[in-house]
Amino acid sequence: MLDISLAPVIVVAPDSFKGSLGASEVAQAIASGIRNALPNAVVRLCPMADGGEGTLDAMVNGGGHRMAVAVRGADGRERAIDVGITSDGSAIIETAAIVGLTDKAGIAIDVDERTSYGVGEAIRACLDLEIRRIFVALGGTSTNDGGAGMLAALGMRLFEQHGNEIEPVLKTLSTIKRADLSGLDERLGKTTIIGMSDVDNPLAGECGATAVFGQQKGVAADRIKDHDFALAHFANVVESTVGSFWQNAQGAGAAGGLGFALMAIGGRLESGAELVAKEVGLNEALEGADWLITGEGRSDCQTLSGKAPFVARRLARTLAVPATLLSGSLDTKSLPALGEHFDGCFSPIDGPMTLERAIQCAPSLLEQAAEQLVRLRYTPCQRS
Amino acid sequence: MLDISLAPVIVVAPDSFKGSLGASEVAQAIASGIRNALPNAVVRLCPMADGGEGTLDAMVNGGGHRMAVAVRGADGRERAIDVGITSDGSAIIETAAIVGLTDKAGIAIDVDERTSYGVGEAIRACLDLEIRRIFVALGGTSTNDGGAGMLAALGMRLFEQHGNEIEPVLKTLSTIKRADLSGLDERLGKTTIIGMSDVDNPLAGECGATAVFGQQKGVAADRIKDHDFALAHFANVVESTVGSFWQNAQGAGAAGGLGFALMAIGGRLESGAELVAKEVGLNEALEGADWLITGEGRSDCQTLSGKAPFVARRLARTLAVPATLLSGSLDTKSLPALGEHFDGCFSPIDGPMTLERAIQCAPSLLEQAAEQLVRLRYTPCQRS
Repeated sequence: MLDISLAPVIVVAPDSFKGSLGASEVAQAIASGIRNALPNAVVRLCPMADGGEGTLDAMVNGGGHRMAVAVRGADGRERAIDVGITSDGSAIIETAAIVGLTDKAGIAIDVDERTSYGVGEAIRACLDLEIRRIFVALGGTSTNDGGAGMLAALGMRLFEQHGNEIEPVLKTLSTIKRADLSGLDERLGKTTIIGMSDVDNPLAGECGATAVFGQQKGVAADRIKDHDFALAHFANVVESTVGSFWQNAQGAGAAGGLGFALMAIGGRLESGAELVAKEVGLNEALEGADWLITGEGRSDCQTLSGKAPFVARRLARTLAVPATLLSGSLDTKSLPALGEHFDGCFSPIDGPMTLERAIQCAPSLLEQAAEQLVRLRYTPCQRS
Repeated sequence: MLDISLAPVIVVAPDSFKGSLGASEVAQAIASGIRNALPNAVVRLCPMADGGEGTLDAMVNGGGHRMAVAVRGADGRERAIDVGITSDGSAIIETAAIVGLTDKAGIAIDVDERTSYGVGEAIRACLDLEIRRIFVALGGTSTNDGGAGMLAALGMRLFEQHGNEIEPVLKTLSTIKRADLSGLDERLGKTTIIGMSDVDNPLAGECGATAVFGQQKGVAADRIKDHDFALAHFANVVESTVGSFWQNAQGAGAAGGLGFALMAIGGRLESGAELVAKEVGLNEALEGADWLITGEGRSDCQTLSGKAPFVARRLARTLAVPATLLSGSLDTKSLPALGEHFDGCFSPIDGPMTLERAIQCAPSLLEQAAEQLVRLRYTPCQRS
């Protein structure tokens, strides 16, 4: 036990460790470790998210509630999901909960048949409740339909050259001639829709949704060009209908093009991690704090482009609070760059072990690592 | 790069990472990491050892030289080894270099035929050079002959009941009737012999050399009792001849009984790590230092019974210098106990990985880990 006269205030604001622990569980484990070493520490927990899986949890953890809604999954079959209602009455829809990359039924069918229809249904459910601000967490989706499914659920109709209506899935998008958005849900006009994203990619092209994220969704390498063409074609048709142009905007390629579709109907995109930070009150928690511990499942150079730990560290820096990274694993090559931005980057892994074991022991490894970090940090500095 | 006005003085005193890096290499890697974060740091390198493999390196690193000597290995065949001569003219013999557990030729023959004869030859070579203080680093040996071989090389003769002289290897020890030490090298009387050990085990019995270390040397489980009996019998015969009793003294069971044999001819045992610490000037290095970083290949509760990192930490504690452990791996179960004694215990492992990869990347992992520790430690503490 360390002898610190003033109780230090430590803010614990990790993202989830994907595939292992939710952000709350990570934060709890770190808090336990802090208290083992410093029982009188004031620990402020702000579990984070970046717009992907876990965002809904983070947004309603501090207050608010959940509401069950029936929507279609990526495979078109109905399922019950939760929509979050934050303490100020905004809704939070997590696309990963509807068309998630980890949903086995959804990814069992071919990516060019998967639909984001359920996301539109969830938005409609919020409109039915007269909710006027809807956050849509874009991240971790298995769909690559340019948001055509979502738009269809909200009233858009697509037609091919002979005037026949066609299904809004990727495999038909290259055949559309006309998009009819006149039936779009009118309530959207009175609603603020904010897509939460941590990617800047445009809809199509070399840095587009398919080229960058297609493979992890199961797009075969020799099908990337076809997908990309179909998405761009769909976007051209939609844009010429609505009269505004979004496919090259930052984040249009988020969530298989849901970013594009949200912007096309008047929504805007914001940094998921920054919105979560605001919602969980991270800035207030950091006021007067001594130290921020943040982290995520795996950190690499991507971390420095708007991921939750980096957003947390940026807020901490403005308040002169040191920020330490404790992530499940660190990309060795990225460590020099990460090291420049954090006051120490650490992994809780305490020796050679498999990923399975690391996941299995994650809570105790995190607790112990946090305890050791506290022991080091609060050992009096002799000369400095 | 951190902004520290006064150059901090950091002492780096690790043991070797066995099977991976020598203590000097570990220290160099840590020093590089410190300098990456704090280019103006004063880094004092004191590579450590505990009486096992690497002890000779540590003892002559700061000055002194090496001398090639021809001795028999555990298999009786001749080999060239180095004996160290320290700056003050003492000799250092590393038994692991003569009859090491990692020597393939030595362990190819059955443990009850292996001989410590070469250790006696090395001592004789030192006596020939009129060296008056000989350190014998006891650790990492494959022999379990009670030091009979070593004593034979120094002039002892063993006889069975019919007066026939017998070979001084374990398989014959249970048949000896008489030991003749009258021919023992006279020069031993004018020489200080110090066995360097980090074990407290007696020669025989439940905590004896065979019961505790036999299996790692290849003693079959059903042969442990026989070995144990033979060692005790040999010791009884030797003790009744020399008229003093050593088999139950602390450390008699070190190095398959070489501890006993050294004491029987007037030597004494001391903590290997403490002697090395003295030889490398660790105490002087710690004077006015801000921080000690120590470590070893793997740390567990054994670390707290006299291993090099613990000895280093003890010296640091007396000078109020914080001591942090950076070991290749940490035994998760032992971490709470280790945590009580060190100002933070860390592994350089930065994510799930195999032992092979950890060994292969050890220098860069260590460098990076040290850099991160420095970044954390020298970040200003706000309120503490």
